[in-house]
Amino acid sequence: MNDLAAAVLAGDRGAVARAITLVESTSPTHREAARELLGELVPRSGAATRVGISGMPGVGKSTFIDELGSLLTSQGRQVAVLAVDPSSVSSHGSVMGDKTRMNRLAVDDCAFVRPSPSAGTLGGVARATREAMVVLEAAGYDIVLVETVGVGQSETAVADMVDTFLFLTLARTGDQLQGIKRGILELADVIAVNKADGSHLVEARLAAKELGGAIRLLTGGNPQRNVEVLTCSSTAGTGVPEVWDAVVAHRDGLVAEGALQGLRSRQQVRWMWSAVEDHLLRDLRHDAAVANVLPALEAAVAAGDLAPGVAADEVIGTFRKG
Amino acid sequence: MNDLAAAVLAGDRGAVARAITLVESTSPTHREAARELLGELVPRSGAATRVGISGMPGVGKSTFIDELGSLLTSQGRQVAVLAVDPSSVSSHGSVMGDKTRMNRLAVDDCAFVRPSPSAGTLGGVARATREAMVVLEAAGYDIVLVETVGVGQSETAVADMVDTFLFLTLARTGDQLQGIKRGILELADVIAVNKADGSHLVEARLAAKELGGAIRLLTGGNPQRNVEVLTCSSTAGTGVPEVWDAVVAHRDGLVAEGALQGLRSRQQVRWMWSAVEDHLLRDLRHDAAVANVLPALEAAVAAGDLAPGVAADEVIGTFRKG
Repeated sequence: MNDLAAAVLAGDRGAVARAITLVESTSPTHREAARELLGELVPRSGAATRVGISGMPGVGKSTFIDELGSLLTSQGRQVAVLAVDPSSVSSHGSVMGDKTRMNRLAVDDCAFVRPSPSAGTLGGVARATREAMVVLEAAGYDIVLVETVGVGQSETAVADMVDTFLFLTLARTGDQLQGIKRGILELADVIAVNKADGSHLVEARLAAKELGGAIRLLTGGNPQRNVEVLTCSSTAGTGVPEVWDAVVAHRDGLVAEGALQGLRSRQQVRWMWSAVEDHLLRDLRHDAAVANVLPALEAAVAAGDLAPGVAADEVIGTFRKG
Repeated sequence: MNDLAAAVLAGDRGAVARAITLVESTSPTHREAARELLGELVPRSGAATRVGISGMPGVGKSTFIDELGSLLTSQGRQVAVLAVDPSSVSSHGSVMGDKTRMNRLAVDDCAFVRPSPSAGTLGGVARATREAMVVLEAAGYDIVLVETVGVGQSETAVADMVDTFLFLTLARTGDQLQGIKRGILELADVIAVNKADGSHLVEARLAAKELGGAIRLLTGGNPQRNVEVLTCSSTAGTGVPEVWDAVVAHRDGLVAEGALQGLRSRQQVRWMWSAVEDHLLRDLRHDAAVANVLPALEAAVAAGDLAPGVAADEVIGTFRKG
């Protein structure tokens, strides 16, 4: 066995950090080494509870994760925090999963906090995060929290790598619910109305009640989609244990129905296909023969002299001959 | 020259319909014939005014397009109506661009209405619609209206094939604006508050005013993003000419700045790249050698014995050797 794999399996934090850096890299040499590493680690991963945590900016995700993670490590759990931040693609830096915003977890020996990779595309970021999850699970982290922002594509990517998806929101009622409804209610397994403290407590409870009603209406009382809506306050710490209990109850339900293994198998196969897409297009974009014909083809397409579909087939023909 | 191409260029409606059916097909033989056809037609396309029209279900898109299209044909224009409907992918049938919902245009000799193709993926639907646009422009249609629904991905696809993007909405004020703001305001060049008639007139005008203010706030007064917000009533016909004037003014602005050609060149090149992705993945999924190794690889990935990225590279290796 590879030295790095052995050190990861022994739970060495430095090795875990190096292994994640390796899986995040897109250089061909590093990808080859990452494949070898993952070949060792994948069969030793999968035991963790995987939870996605989403919500619009300002909802208090980092504070919530700091509170929840500290609660879990105090119970003897090993907690990993990852992030999928599409904005990191353009800004080359992530504000999420930022250690400086998780004061307690950042210095907690039982926690490992890693910011979002910035690997070029959402597909690349998601791929790197999924592989980092394998590394962390193989190293013994038994709870993996994956943070993301409340925008469509990245939420779908995260939902496709976790067992349970938790959506954090603020007190919103009536018409304001409209903005939340689209999309997220099909993904969320548990919803928590955060900042339910002080003068906001009453409206948070009202919002949770209204949201619960809206969900029952939308799901038509389907018992398979029993989404719990709770309130909590990350700063006061109230309600956070109950939110975690709801997450565990959702996952236990999957296990009891024998559905967890099926869910994960489907996720793994979709992950394989998205890797096929990513790698194939990356190979094409780095192909020397393609690079040779591309400038003339792009110029003809841009000038309107050549049909884009015809040019596409020439690009592919060149790639496949090479 | 190809007979079908000649008949399309002569404006023969039957030939136009057959040519669109051809570009919508995904069979390899048809694709080869479509490429040949498009090779002839692309250099003869591009003169039309291309307008995307979006809005949530219920906003009255079909009635609006029926009214607008009839107005334009009465002015001697040749109007084509296309649609990109992602729901057609699963339902194998489109409600949009449906002739039965455009009573006047359906029987108008100066109009050609074609429902959304249902070509398997949003990428496939968008590709077929773009190619249908080439056919219609080559046949002499000088205005192309592309209808879509108000959901993220399909709107982006349509915005990437038109000169001007028109967003239809209903009177909404205050908090209800929240739901609209995300995404669409970056795409819209003109916004029209529809159903501004009878008892709704006052609230529609108020909503347009408020929406205009929100946009100015968001764009920070950027003169490049001068989005006009108007009101109209498709059923009464009021305001529709003014909405069209705003669309024309936006496009004239692009022409005056010399920006239209650049916009279209970038669209064409992006279209080429999306065709590269689509075709390459389709080739891979139809590859005999890949089909041979796939069941064992998928089973190992589903069982958690093989890393998805490793399996992906085996799939690609098999494809590229073949």
